[in-house]
Amino acid sequence: MSTTKRQVHLNVFLRGAGHHAAAWRHPDTHPELGFDFRYYLKLAQIAERGLLDSLFMADGYVGTGRRLEPFTLLSALASVTEHIGLIGTVGTTYNEPYHVARKFASLDHISGGRAGWNIVTGHTDATAYNFGREEHLEHSKRYEAAEEFVEITKQLWDSWEEEALVFDKQSGVQFDETRLHEINFKGKVYKVKGPLNIPRPPQGYPVLVQAGSSESGKELAAKTAEAIFTAQPTYGEGKAFYTDVKARLAKYGRTPEQLVILPGLSPIIGDTAAEAQDLEDELNAFNNVEDAVDKLSERFGVNLSGYPIDGPFPVSAFDSAKGIDSVNGSKSRHQLILDLIRKENLTIRQLVNRLASGRGHLTFTGTPIQLADVIEHWVTHGASDGFNLMPPLYPNGLEAFVDKVIPELQNRGLFRTSYEGKTLRENLGLVRPANSLLHA
Amino acid sequence: MSTTKRQVHLNVFLRGAGHHAAAWRHPDTHPELGFDFRYYLKLAQIAERGLLDSLFMADGYVGTGRRLEPFTLLSALASVTEHIGLIGTVGTTYNEPYHVARKFASLDHISGGRAGWNIVTGHTDATAYNFGREEHLEHSKRYEAAEEFVEITKQLWDSWEEEALVFDKQSGVQFDETRLHEINFKGKVYKVKGPLNIPRPPQGYPVLVQAGSSESGKELAAKTAEAIFTAQPTYGEGKAFYTDVKARLAKYGRTPEQLVILPGLSPIIGDTAAEAQDLEDELNAFNNVEDAVDKLSERFGVNLSGYPIDGPFPVSAFDSAKGIDSVNGSKSRHQLILDLIRKENLTIRQLVNRLASGRGHLTFTGTPIQLADVIEHWVTHGASDGFNLMPPLYPNGLEAFVDKVIPELQNRGLFRTSYEGKTLRENLGLVRPANSLLHA
Repeated sequence: MSTTKRQVHLNVFLRGAGHHAAAWRHPDTHPELGFDFRYYLKLAQIAERGLLDSLFMADGYVGTGRRLEPFTLLSALASVTEHIGLIGTVGTTYNEPYHVARKFASLDHISGGRAGWNIVTGHTDATAYNFGREEHLEHSKRYEAAEEFVEITKQLWDSWEEEALVFDKQSGVQFDETRLHEINFKGKVYKVKGPLNIPRPPQGYPVLVQAGSSESGKELAAKTAEAIFTAQPTYGEGKAFYTDVKARLAKYGRTPEQLVILPGLSPIIGDTAAEAQDLEDELNAFNNVEDAVDKLSERFGVNLSGYPIDGPFPVSAFDSAKGIDSVNGSKSRHQLILDLIRKENLTIRQLVNRLASGRGHLTFTGTPIQLADVIEHWVTHGASDGFNLMPPLYPNGLEAFVDKVIPELQNRGLFRTSYEGKTLRENLGLVRPANSLLHA
Repeated sequence: MSTTKRQVHLNVFLRGAGHHAAAWRHPDTHPELGFDFRYYLKLAQIAERGLLDSLFMADGYVGTGRRLEPFTLLSALASVTEHIGLIGTVGTTYNEPYHVARKFASLDHISGGRAGWNIVTGHTDATAYNFGREEHLEHSKRYEAAEEFVEITKQLWDSWEEEALVFDKQSGVQFDETRLHEINFKGKVYKVKGPLNIPRPPQGYPVLVQAGSSESGKELAAKTAEAIFTAQPTYGEGKAFYTDVKARLAKYGRTPEQLVILPGLSPIIGDTAAEAQDLEDELNAFNNVEDAVDKLSERFGVNLSGYPIDGPFPVSAFDSAKGIDSVNGSKSRHQLILDLIRKENLTIRQLVNRLASGRGHLTFTGTPIQLADVIEHWVTHGASDGFNLMPPLYPNGLEAFVDKVIPELQNRGLFRTSYEGKTLRENLGLVRPANSLLHA
């Protein structure tokens, strides 16, 4: 057996005109195409040309959105792509496990085993008002409900044995009833009888992805996730997170290879370092600093408008006003921003620019070679299994990555030169799960 | 202005190996492809070659299903078709109006205005057990909730004015907040704040389709539907239904053209009448009569197994055992079957065969010319605006219709020779609804 270097896995995070907060104002982007399917088709084709593992879309049920519903878009992309994985975000709080299990099974059948489910539990209170509820479920309760939710979907996917479909034209037997199983799940939150009304997905289960990085999020991920999207702004934090989460797997009888950790990476690429820096400056010049300050004020419950924009960020006002424990939403992201300010002594403007490029994820500005160095360093030194790419501009930022960084990674023996398998699971090196009900 | 004949509208009802109960046993069908996207792609391509108005899929949340989830499949078909409408069934009872409005808006954007929503309310009690509820909502309550549900989705689609998206790169204004509207809906069942997080669909609303034919179903259709799928086994019943429903429109301020009525039609086509009859006999020979009798027994709550299969159907046993008013499900379909038995004095076997071909819908066995005669008769004499095609076998039955019946209808000036418009709404001759919140 030949010795192979650790392989980099790469997901691309689709998002309107790009991940920079002001991407839509850059002359090269076309934000007006954000509801035009052909725009997403083009991005998917670039990503597939680059042999990336998967596409991913975030989601939310509130506000002005500016995005197509991810599951609908990914289904439409399934029929015009061949290899790339299709990871859709579906929240557990306002959905039914039966529907979610069935839709992902359908997407997995339609795409020939390329579906992934990014399981999220967190939404803002405002979301509740679109679903006839007065307030959002409390943080720890949401994780409890989410655990039941995921357990039900797995049992539903397992409710058909592989050999259940018979279709014997001669005898007139369509399927073997003894190979269909009720699940009769009765939890604290959910009660679901089953079986599901569609056969087991080609991948067994779609690839289960998690994005929460709080304490309960990490624990749920270690128990159930097969890939994690996470925000780790520095190598040190990335390595600590990676080490922490991988170490939690053993108690659930899992090995480190069964969970692929992909921190977000927002790369501003130029042929020279100066060119990359110019692009970063150009993008930041489009930032609406006033608006960003208002949003930060709202996020942390402190009025920042009285502080000088180029003065130090008033961290102390935050701490006293609204402790992190009272935050019911994206808890780990709030902590990350506070840590960032403290460690780097950022001014208000610097924080705004920093968050504009990557919203707290790892950012990078430089050449393709320098970026390949960063990726190689993280992956070979146990800080990640690859990255969740967040190009600042679409399509240009993705094209630059695919055309200039991918060949460099391939030259270094770090990235595939053709897809390893047919399914997302195969390309991520994840095993197909056995049917849990089969010998239960 | 030239005088144009009334135009026939045709929808094709997708369903596994075909609409005959024993379709899957016929040597020409491939039931094992029922979860293979390429099978449905082929059907869609045949239908689009035939210039049919739309595709439609039924749905259910229980049992062994044997179908892909319709919305996922239609989304995947949206990106590989250009003209044909995509009508998905989504039930109101176990879904959230916000999700449904958003998904149909997304499908409408992705398909360039080809989405249709078949609004159903009826499910069996067994469905409730897959959604943590003990029993199904009572029939009249379901319609009340459905009315609220549809009203909310319309308001959500209207919550974005057309000009809300600005994307002025110079000024940095992405959208005009004054053109986004909360709906603040508070009904007996639902409470939804809005706005939706996606712009108004290209069609304004997806085409709203209804399939219930009970008294409350007809009233809801007259109030809200733009197309009806209905089961009318004879011309007389079809004409009575058509006249009844069209007459109900005026009280809601609507004109007859605003609702397209499409009864189901299951055509067995042969080049000669004898050939068609042979195919019907061949198909019926595959029927599992015993199994069908068991299902009828269950449906009507009477044990039929003690009666001779070629003897008269014991209608009186039905009447006394379980009155139609106690049926909580597809109420109008039960009544239709009872009427059919009474009028035609069917034996048990004859009823089984009759239901096997079309499940109570209009059936036909004969040549393409004879079928064109039937279609012309219904449409020109005010019994329908076209049909919901239910070919007994896929793909053959659909191919026969497209290749042999469509040209005949075109020769008679009854069917388009190219698509009239870009959207489903345009092809069905339906106007794009004005925004109800705009001048409210």
